[in-house]
Parts: sequence; structure tokens; C-alpha cells
Amino acid sequence: MPETQVTKDMLGRSELLSVDAALNILIHALQDITLESETIPLDQAFDRILAEPILSPEDLPAQARSTMDGFAVRAADTFGASQSMPCYLNITGEVKMGEAPLAEVKKGCCHKIPTGGLLPLGADGVVMLEHTVPVDETMIEIVKGVGTGTHLIQKGEDIAFNQQALPTGQILRPQNIGLLAGLGIEQVTVYRKVRVGILSTGDEIIPHTETPKPGQIRNINTLALAGLVRQADGIYTNYGIVSDQKEIFLPAVKKAVQENDIVLFSGGSSVGVRDLGEQVIEALGPPGILVHGVTLKPGKPILIGMCDTTPIFGLPGHPVSAMVCFDFFVKPAIEQLSGRIHSAQLPELSLPAQLTRNINSAPGRRDVIRVQLFRGENCWRAEPIMGKSGSISTLSKAHGYFLITEDSQGVTENTVIEVFLYS
Amino acid sequence: MPETQVTKDMLGRSELLSVDAALNILIHALQDITLESETIPLDQAFDRILAEPILSPEDLPAQARSTMDGFAVRAADTFGASQSMPCYLNITGEVKMGEAPLAEVKKGCCHKIPTGGLLPLGADGVVMLEHTVPVDETMIEIVKGVGTGTHLIQKGEDIAFNQQALPTGQILRPQNIGLLAGLGIEQVTVYRKVRVGILSTGDEIIPHTETPKPGQIRNINTLALAGLVRQADGIYTNYGIVSDQKEIFLPAVKKAVQENDIVLFSGGSSVGVRDLGEQVIEALGPPGILVHGVTLKPGKPILIGMCDTTPIFGLPGHPVSAMVCFDFFVKPAIEQLSGRIHSAQLPELSLPAQLTRNINSAPGRRDVIRVQLFRGENCWRAEPIMGKSGSISTLSKAHGYFLITEDSQGVTENTVIEVFLYS
Repeated sequence: MPETQVTKDMLGRSELLSVDAALNILIHALQDITLESETIPLDQAFDRILAEPILSPEDLPAQARSTMDGFAVRAADTFGASQSMPCYLNITGEVKMGEAPLAEVKKGCCHKIPTGGLLPLGADGVVMLEHTVPVDETMIEIVKGVGTGTHLIQKGEDIAFNQQALPTGQILRPQNIGLLAGLGIEQVTVYRKVRVGILSTGDEIIPHTETPKPGQIRNINTLALAGLVRQADGIYTNYGIVSDQKEIFLPAVKKAVQENDIVLFSGGSSVGVRDLGEQVIEALGPPGILVHGVTLKPGKPILIGMCDTTPIFGLPGHPVSAMVCFDFFVKPAIEQLSGRIHSAQLPELSLPAQLTRNINSAPGRRDVIRVQLFRGENCWRAEPIMGKSGSISTLSKAHGYFLITEDSQGVTENTVIEVFLYS
Repeated sequence: MPETQVTKDMLGRSELLSVDAALNILIHALQDITLESETIPLDQAFDRILAEPILSPEDLPAQARSTMDGFAVRAADTFGASQSMPCYLNITGEVKMGEAPLAEVKKGCCHKIPTGGLLPLGADGVVMLEHTVPVDETMIEIVKGVGTGTHLIQKGEDIAFNQQALPTGQILRPQNIGLLAGLGIEQVTVYRKVRVGILSTGDEIIPHTETPKPGQIRNINTLALAGLVRQADGIYTNYGIVSDQKEIFLPAVKKAVQENDIVLFSGGSSVGVRDLGEQVIEALGPPGILVHGVTLKPGKPILIGMCDTTPIFGLPGHPVSAMVCFDFFVKPAIEQLSGRIHSAQLPELSLPAQLTRNINSAPGRRDVIRVQLFRGENCWRAEPIMGKSGSISTLSKAHGYFLITEDSQGVTENTVIEVFLYS
């Protein structure tokens, strides 16, 4: 276990971990879990993650090819040729695309060749069309000589037989799929997608398709979280709204754990629902609760537990808090379980912007402040979105967010902050 | 028509437009085209684009609610209460989640209330639990007074009846879907997705599932372009590999034009295939060819045409060139046709990195230089990927690219450049 930083909240009611400590514990707990793989056709493998390395099944190119439109030559024949002292070659053949060249290029001769054309026997270089002047149909003037190998790609130069084309853990972006098509790979073995089960609880929550009676509120979190799972390349199953009575809630969570790789439930940050969440996570079996709340605002009351190899997240009921917790904890968990590796740990990009007002923060806590961006005179300006905790209209107004770190007491107006954009 | 900047290439063979001029012409030609809309359930509308504004069907909240766990009070009763001079209120009721409060809060009294609970009659503020000390089961000590409206969200304060919740052209991200769920929106009217037909041509091109004979090469572009269409939220149809004989190619492109909103064909930058592309675009009817090549490297030989309202792109045969042309021209066309609007024209984010070597460029041309990134001592370093034109192994090595603009002759080693990352 990595070292953890434990703090107490204002009332000393519970032990809170820092965001980094909680994330370390979570990722550590997930690191030996591997999902099953499946073999699928290449043209269905967009955005999937390789479960095996891809080795090249052949030399590519299989034979030397021209990389220019021009003339295949014996390079020695063109040595020293220039505008002022050109050389002349007899055109004795033409390489066509899609055909194997039959004739050999003899000394003093050349064959017309297109980009991608196979180099004919005898030739060892290509003179670009732009460096030639036609004399007549049988002769060409060369105004710039070439060396051996010029404007050629040699056999196996691109990828040699058995060389690794892509590593295990590579996500298959369009450019990677293109590479594999070029290698003639018909099927790939990829990890199956991470399955995420989503439950909502709380007796005041009703489906968004129903009309609330006084005191009831519509279920926002299930669809918002489902959308985030989808953006993170996971597959979600909606287990609907489940009663917060333990005898109903426990078997529902248990079923979701059996059917998924990750389970999320959200249900009010009220003390009652939070206690229920803790009881249910512990009742499902070891290792149980890993994280009882974090020093994050919003998102403090998050619960993170594990049942065997399945992480379970108890997210706050407020949609903004639930979505922040998703970004900081659930998304990294999906990413870890997906098997994806990164060839370079590129940073998440951000946009510098000037803050429009002072924002206070408590030291020892990480604040996630959502902002709307607009153009200032010479820079972007970031207006914090300060909706009340019950407000849902602010949900979709944010262009992104910035962080006030644990060692800061706040950020003053006109400070340049780094805004991470929502996609 | 916007003003265009026309230049000639080295041999004066064709008129090339700058990237910006070509894009202006393209977007201008597309700007009055609107796709049909369809009405779908909210839970299937992720990443779809609204074809109508969403007005709130009700006041939200329908009644004032508490935004904290605490006690609903008459604010005047708590006026001036502090740690040193607390006030005391009788607990005469409790608001439960999901239930309408029945009793009224009388003077000198309070009701227990959870976050989200409906404010009972008589009360006009909420005291946070943290600012109270229990005396016994019937009385509470208030150590911090509140004003009218404190810790409340008023009726209609979040969104009022008939107020616009989301505008036409809004893409439905998870946070927007959450907002609509909260408003009880069951169905949304969205534009249908942009349909893109993809053809490959060239008699040397074979399906990636076949073994090439000498001179043949596998079809890389169809799958690479399909992946890019998918990333741009379009739907693709693969029309396969079509002979480059006009009597076969023309009807195939015509069929694709009839069935799609955008048609892409790629097929060798060889002069023959390019001529065929021009002939076919002109033969399909007005307005015909809009762009005959651009001052972009790679990507110079791109053809852009229109048949009635359908843009047709003739992309270079080389996969890297085809993908660069997609990023600069096809993606903006998909975006334009999708109907999406942006609430703020946020810039594409980039990562500053130091270039590892000199790169020359011709003035008057925009160069797209793909790079691999690695960590330097205090910064990221960007290594240009200089694969030969026939190389496909470099296809998937790039982390991103940077631009050498039209007014530059190149960039020297150690210059800090802005790298745009591939997703």
C-alpha cells in the first residue's frame, strides 16, 4: 500500500484522504486485474485496446519501390549530371502500378516509374520527373544525378518480418488501424470493454420520465454517469433506481457486481444513504471499503470499496459532485482496467485564462471550480460558476474547470489559471 | 465567395489555393445546408446535436428547497445568534426526503430538514447542521443566525418555466443530458448524423484481407478514413475499392453521392487518377470543382468539389496525406453539416515542445510536420517523423503535429513549437 495522508473533517466525523492518496490506493488495488480478451475483425476494432502485440507478418515493402514519379535508373549512369552538364538515357520500358516489372534496366537505359512502382531489376535509384527534360519518346535528359537508393524504399525498410508493429495495450486509433490494414492484419485480439453498472438510490428519486410529486426529484445521475462511461470507452448497464432499504439495495448491488467490472451507485450525500453504502460495500465481502471520503470539493463524501476484484464507487447524490468524482476516480479506474498503456505520459492540456473574481479555498482541500470562458482583451477570461448546491441549470454551462490545490487558500481576481476543458 | 489567394506550383502546372482560402470556399458552399432532424429518446441522444432549442417545461425547483442538511427556520428568529450568544428553537417537525411537508413552522420553532428537502410553510431560511448544538430531542441551539433565503433555492430560481435550457446546435454531452433529465425531457429532436461515403480507387489497390501480388498494395485509406469519420461523430459507408476506369468509377461515385452527405475518394496522387477525379466531379453536375489543390504539405493534390449540396473530396493516395487532408478539410465539413454551434470558439489546445532538429519549408506553403514527443530536461522535446513517402510504419508513431506557416522558411532546432495532439 502506498503511504496515505489521512485528515479529519471539520467535525472529526470521518477520516478523509487526499485525492492523490485515495487515487493511489485505488489504482494499486486494480493493478493486477486483467480483463478477458476477444478476437475481432480489424474493421470493428476502432478504439479497442490490443491484448497482444502485433508482429509484422511480412517484410514491408516486399520489394523495393519508388517513392516518386520519375525514371528508374542505374545510379552510376547519372553520376554528376546537372543543369549545365546533363546526361541522356534511353527509355526502354515503363513500370505500371499494380504490375510486376518484367524487363531489366540495362546500362545507359531507364524505365518510366510511378510513385509506389516496383523497382525493376538492374535499377538502384529513381530520378524525379521534375529533374528530367523529355528529348523524344525514346530518350530523356537528366539534369540532376542520383545516388544508389535515392527515392526508393527498400525491401523490409518500412517494417521487417516479425518486427513489432504495435505493443500490447495500444489503443487502436485510425492511424493504427491503417497501419494494421497495410500489414494485412485481418483480426486483432483486444481486451473486452470495461463494463460499468450504474445504480441510483434514494426514495425521493424518480425516473426522469415521470412527474415528481412534492419532495421528489428526477434521476439526473444515471444518464449523466452513463454518458461519462461512454466517453471513457466503457459500456454501461443501467440498473435503474433502487430503494435505499438495505434488504433491497444489497442484493441489487450484488447483482451489479456479478455482472460488471465496476459498479457505481449514487444517492444523496445524506448521512443515511452514506451509511447504507458503507454497510453494503462491507457486506459484499473483502477487501471492502478502501476510501471513506476525500479532501475534495465538490466530491468529499465519495466512498470507494472493492468486492473481490470489482471496485464499487458510492458517489454523492448531487450531479456536479458525482461528475467530479467520476473524473477524478472512476475514469482513472476504467482506464486502468481497460489495459491501455501510453507510449508517452502526455499531460492533459489546459488553456490559460484570467480569473474574473476572487475564490477562497480551505487549505488541505482540493477545490474543483467550474468556469465559463469568454474572450477578454488579450486573453481568455474564466468566470466561476457558483450555482447553489441544488442547482441543475449550471450543470451544462461550464466549459471546463480549474483546480485550487491543497496548499492554497484561494486564488485572487485576474490571476492566470489553467483551465481543463470538458470535451 | 470569399477572396481567394491563388498561387502556382513549382512547374506552374496547376493553380493552388492557400489552406485558409480553400477552407473558406468549402465552408461558404456548405453554410446553407441543413440535415433532416429526428426525434429520439433522451437516453439515446449522447453526442447528438439539437435541431430545436429546449425550453424548460416547468419551474425548477417547483417549490423552494433546502440546499443543506439542517433546520428550516423563520430567519427573523435567528437574527444575531452567535457562538457567544446562541438562540434556542423548539423542534416541532421533520421534513423527509420525497415527502411534502405538512405542518407549518411557527414562530420560535424549527423543523429538521435534509439537503433537497422542501421548505415547509412559515420557514424562510435554513440553518446548517454544523451551526447547531442539540440540547435535547425537542430543542436545538443555533450558534449562527441566517437571513431570509439562506441555504435555499427558490421556486423557479434554477430554471423558470419556458426559459431556454439549451439552444439549437448544442451537442449533448453527459452534463447536458443530465440537465435535460432533470427537466423531465423524455425525447429530443436532433439532426441526423452526417453520412460519409468512402471509396478507394486505383488498380493496384487490393483489400487489406488479400495477399498482394508484385506491384499491388493493400487498402489502408478506407479504414483509416472510416476511423476519422467515426471520431468526428459521422457515420461511414464503405464502398470498397472501385476500378479507376471512368465508366466504372463515375457511377460508383454517383451512387455514393446519392446515399451520403459527403463523399471521399482516395486514390494515388498520380496524375492519371487525379485527372479522373476531376472529370468525375465535373461530370456529376454543378457546382463541380471548387478547389484544385492547396499549398499544403502533405496534401497538396486534394480536390474538393460539390455535386448539388454534396461535397466530394478527392484525397491523395498516400495515407498520411489523406489523413492530413481529412483533418484540415473533411473534418470541418462534417462539423459544418452536423449543425453544431459552439458557445465559445475555444481554441484547439496545444503542448509547447522544443524541436529536436532544423526543418526547412518553402514560403507560401503550410507544412504539417508530425512529431513524436519525449521528455527533455525541463520541457517536452518534439522529434519530427521523416518517413519516406511510401512508409506506413510511421503512420501510427506520431503523438501529434505542428505547423510551419506560409510566411516561414522553416524552424530551427530547439525552437519551442506548439504541438497539436492526436486523440
